[in-house]
Amino acid sequence: MDYLDQDTSNCSVGRAVDLLGQPWVLLILREVSRGIRRFSDLQNHLGVSRSVLSDRLGGLVERGVLELRDYQEPGTRRRSEYVLTPMGKDLYPLITALRNWGDKYLADPEGPSMLATHHACGAPVRVALMCEDGHVVASGDEVDRRPGPGARARARA
Amino acid sequence: MDYLDQDTSNCSVGRAVDLLGQPWVLLILREVSRGIRRFSDLQNHLGVSRSVLSDRLGGLVERGVLELRDYQEPGTRRRSEYVLTPMGKDLYPLITALRNWGDKYLADPEGPSMLATHHACGAPVRVALMCEDGHVVASGDEVDRRPGPGARARARA
Repeated sequence: MDYLDQDTSNCSVGRAVDLLGQPWVLLILREVSRGIRRFSDLQNHLGVSRSVLSDRLGGLVERGVLELRDYQEPGTRRRSEYVLTPMGKDLYPLITALRNWGDKYLADPEGPSMLATHHACGAPVRVALMCEDGHVVASGDEVDRRPGPGARARARA
Repeated sequence: MDYLDQDTSNCSVGRAVDLLGQPWVLLILREVSRGIRRFSDLQNHLGVSRSVLSDRLGGLVERGVLELRDYQEPGTRRRSEYVLTPMGKDLYPLITALRNWGDKYLADPEGPSMLATHHACGAPVRVALMCEDGHVVASGDEVDRRPGPGARARARA
């Protein structure tokens, strides 16, 4: 099936964009992945309205990307914080891909505002394209595409 | 500097999201990366209005992600097509990260609608986290973060 003849409504890229593409969602996930977990800290650091933040966090909990956890430090009142579920932690390569691309093309002349390094060895962490046989894939030009088991033909206009 | 004390306005993740986060932009880039290059094919396959598509394509050309190229097949009139610049080709890991995550969490029971394989060996292509010393990094839990040379303190409210 030619790609133009394929229905894109069940494309995984499109579904991921549907879930993550609303304003603030990727920025909220960046913050949580960097350890900002309380509502008030998220609101203050992002400069987003309470109502929008509340809506986006609720959506991310509902879709299984974040979960709300109670915690209590000695002598303080009980609080809630947002943590990444396994589904949310699996977004780290996506956030890294955004950071790498932004660092390469959109950073200030001084350089990136954030460095991410491998805890075990201290070297900078990046996303790479790899195949399941373990080869590094240099670019999309080295990739073949074909319809998968979920492919459906679309009605042509 | 604690991350909460850092100004996020020059964060590379945020700048990438600013450029790519408008509706349709990532889907347009998915299509172009899969070889759909003509305005009419993009419009027809995505089901987006001409005016929105035209606006988004113009923005991507202006920001250097796509370029417009003229071509002519023998016996037909001159046409234009959109192709990825090197900056646009460098988005392939990001699109792959969206696809991998969507395939894992959001695909139909039949499986993914699109397979991407390494041209050289035929094995499926994925994004991986790697450090510059060549280690595979299993997740964001193995990553340390610290402010980079472009880090700026923010005015705390």
